[in-house]
Amino acid sequence: MFKIDLNCDLGESYGPYKIGNDQEMMKYISSANIACGFHGGDPSIMRETVLLALENDVSIGAHPGLPDLNGFGRREMNLSLTEAYSMVVYQIGALQAFVQSEGGKLTHVKPHGALYNMCASNALLAEKVCEAIYRVNPELVLFGLSNSELITAGEKIGLKTASEVFADRTYQRDGSLTPRSKSNALIENVHEALTQVLKMVKEQKVTTIDGMDVPIKAETICLHGDGLHALDFAKHISATLLKEGIEISPLSI
Amino acid sequence: MFKIDLNCDLGESYGPYKIGNDQEMMKYISSANIACGFHGGDPSIMRETVLLALENDVSIGAHPGLPDLNGFGRREMNLSLTEAYSMVVYQIGALQAFVQSEGGKLTHVKPHGALYNMCASNALLAEKVCEAIYRVNPELVLFGLSNSELITAGEKIGLKTASEVFADRTYQRDGSLTPRSKSNALIENVHEALTQVLKMVKEQKVTTIDGMDVPIKAETICLHGDGLHALDFAKHISATLLKEGIEISPLSI
Amino acid sequence: MFKIDLNCDLGESYGPYKIGNDQEMMKYISSANIACGFHGGDPSIMRETVLLALENDVSIGAHPGLPDLNGFGRREMNLSLTEAYSMVVYQIGALQAFVQSEGGKLTHVKPHGALYNMCASNALLAEKVCEAIYRVNPELVLFGLSNSELITAGEKIGLKTASEVFADRTYQRDGSLTPRSKSNALIENVHEALTQVLKMVKEQKVTTIDGMDVPIKAETICLHGDGLHALDFAKHISATLLKEGIEISPLSI
Amino acid sequence: MFKIDLNCDLGESYGPYKIGNDQEMMKYISSANIACGFHGGDPSIMRETVLLALENDVSIGAHPGLPDLNGFGRREMNLSLTEAYSMVVYQIGALQAFVQSEGGKLTHVKPHGALYNMCASNALLAEKVCEAIYRVNPELVLFGLSNSELITAGEKIGLKTASEVFADRTYQRDGSLTPRSKSNALIENVHEALTQVLKMVKEQKVTTIDGMDVPIKAETICLHGDGLHALDFAKHISATLLKEGIEISPLSI
Repeated sequence: MFKIDLNCDLGESYGPYKIGNDQEMMKYISSANIACGFHGGDPSIMRETVLLALENDVSIGAHPGLPDLNGFGRREMNLSLTEAYSMVVYQIGALQAFVQSEGGKLTHVKPHGALYNMCASNALLAEKVCEAIYRVNPELVLFGLSNSELITAGEKIGLKTASEVFADRTYQRDGSLTPRSKSNALIENVHEALTQVLKMVKEQKVTTIDGMDVPIKAETICLHGDGLHALDFAKHISATLLKEGIEISPLSI
Repeated sequence: MFKIDLNCDLGESYGPYKIGNDQEMMKYISSANIACGFHGGDPSIMRETVLLALENDVSIGAHPGLPDLNGFGRREMNLSLTEAYSMVVYQIGALQAFVQSEGGKLTHVKPHGALYNMCASNALLAEKVCEAIYRVNPELVLFGLSNSELITAGEKIGLKTASEVFADRTYQRDGSLTPRSKSNALIENVHEALTQVLKMVKEQKVTTIDGMDVPIKAETICLHGDGLHALDFAKHISATLLKEGIEISPLSI
Repeated sequence: MFKIDLNCDLGESYGPYKIGNDQEMMKYISSANIACGFHGGDPSIMRETVLLALENDVSIGAHPGLPDLNGFGRREMNLSLTEAYSMVVYQIGALQAFVQSEGGKLTHVKPHGALYNMCASNALLAEKVCEAIYRVNPELVLFGLSNSELITAGEKIGLKTASEVFADRTYQRDGSLTPRSKSNALIENVHEALTQVLKMVKEQKVTTIDGMDVPIKAETICLHGDGLHALDFAKHISATLLKEGIEISPLSI
Repeated sequence: MFKIDLNCDLGESYGPYKIGNDQEMMKYISSANIACGFHGGDPSIMRETVLLALENDVSIGAHPGLPDLNGFGRREMNLSLTEAYSMVVYQIGALQAFVQSEGGKLTHVKPHGALYNMCASNALLAEKVCEAIYRVNPELVLFGLSNSELITAGEKIGLKTASEVFADRTYQRDGSLTPRSKSNALIENVHEALTQVLKMVKEQKVTTIDGMDVPIKAETICLHGDGLHALDFAKHISATLLKEGIEISPLSI
């Protein structure tokens, strides 16, 4: 029987500023990546989001980002390796304290935005980030882009890894994502997105933009929590997976 | 035989900005209160300071402050109880991650600046801060102003507490500190400061500004880490205590 | 013929975080108070909001707040007078640069949130804030709570002032707002709010919570830009005023 | 008769954190570049530094930086052109308000750190930054690295420019600075630094690391305000220039 994890970035509101529909999204996912106060989130929101995840029996991960709230952690910054290491330890620790103080358990870590992208291609940075995760807790599962330097670095240091794939992004022949700068980077048709997901989950393959089937490791699917159709798509994908007899469950169990 | 803890606020530098002489101060103290990135400190500095404390075999505590770097956590802010709670959980967690990832153990928590002062007189806030500490780890020792609401709240929830006294501050008849707004708030003569310390440690008494001896619980002495004479005073007090046969050691052991 | 100013706090979004419906609100107001990056707003949003105000021929004011984005400038902070002064100069200057570089003119200043409230009752702080405004540009109109220390301070230093009243808040016998902590602080019935507005504009009187009519200076009405019914209420009040033959126009003209 | 401007980055302290020796440095320079609160500086420090510059009759410039206090504006960030534009308008406006409210006049703008470096090589960014400066006030003098894209962009839009050279950095055959990553990037010998300065000022030439003399436009020399020997070097260079009959004066006069 097939199983897959559905993950979503949550807890990204800040003070009076609300982003996303965390309460509803929690119903359709198996893993929540909770912002840690650098690119989004604040202590009060972290606590609320942890409580929400516990109520919904959703696996809890830290979602550390760059120290750039104004840019939502999406603007690349030229951090030193030591800064990146310390920043990740800090954020995981902060979230872990909320989880543990509520009787829960932190299960995974997924870097956010520009940090995620930089780690996908920069092996040295990826290794430093993985070292931070490993030293806080070697049992944590690393979520990273399938087929990226981040996954390689995680495996190298001895972390359990979860290869992440996207329902609404197209792939190139080498298994990498089509850059957003290209016109065909996004899959906007829901049916096509679901078809891609099912193929990735059942066959561990993806059809590239030039029509070839290439292998891809798909252990967790990223759902977007923000945007007009985020919740609808979450419902669709969840219902489709269940109908196909695919179990939605976190990797950490 | 008498024993006393000497504590100091450290790790309060930020990015390129240096405050204090952490490396030297570590040699004379038994407990370090390390800033957690809100009123001072940043992830890289937290890591360095934790490493320095471990090298010097100094007990490590979290030193959470108000979210006000520009005011160094010294400007009172009207936080809600929930915000105060979450803010403390967050900061302890962040520091704890550095300590644990370096193989150490977090032993205590001392609120910083305006948060410390607000907790000294505001029972509800003190209880919320103690709840945060207790829920992160009930073994943590709470450092608070001797004879304050913070110590009362700590005892109430079941935390081990350390009553803090000051070498260079005068006391009033009710055992409280003379407010800084008064001209006789500070003891600037080193000899008088040392005399006050020895009386507090050996007799658990302090001579007030109006010449009376009143009882005071003295379990840890606060040394300032910044300022022209901070290091000199630390050397003096340390030497004086040792000469008097008083053991300098952390409470958490 | 009667005339009144309708003002609204705008430009309070931040990075990816959206608050309010600035584009629509601009159609119904005569004065926009634009956030300056401390409690809300950021440079890009300030520029966009200034452009929007210019397109809609709305008078532009600076809306300086406390340096507390997470608390949206609503948490009182114990700033020194010098800090308050400098903070206000800074924010007015920043906004003014956007206005002037787009060929517009900054007309007024309205302190935000906790700063507004603190200035309403703290004469020393109010004087310092007015000094900041005056020294940046003595032609700027000061917006402040009607019958408050802020208005008094503005008049004292020689600023033109605009006494602000609220459509949806009740008043006490001394002309002050009923504190939000009381159950009857808010007027939730739109009809009652409009009735209060018309009385304030036409008769410069308000009916207090204990049924008396007391005098009130009403030169500008504060419309909320956020919340479910903000836009609807703006439309209602604008239509009602126009129907009654009351001109909606800024004070600065 | 020769004349040259000596400029220095000042006002980079933050809250309780002190950097540099502004009071002393002011005595030896003709132009102060004052931090605007993004990479360093805060409103109170901006005001104090402006007052200090006015007292010392030093020309005042804005020194806008990246929004990264922790990294002191030295970490490159991937900002959009619009963000860069708005960020520069904001910071110039904020500083200008302090200068004007004290009866002074803002004369120039010098981007800081990573922003300065990015503008030296990225023409599009340089143009956007120059557009921001120009639109705030077309009379402002742009300070930029001699022979860089920033100077080119400034000239293109119509700004008066000041080509900046360094006393303590070596130059390559194409007139660019030797990258700091190379071992011979710095001139640590004071005598050599002074010799380089005199050649640049009198002959508008510099001897490169491979021994050739190449032309360089030298209108302003950057003095470092921080570091152990900063003040000594400032005294040396100032005395040397005066002894050689070279006038030290700002470009803006």
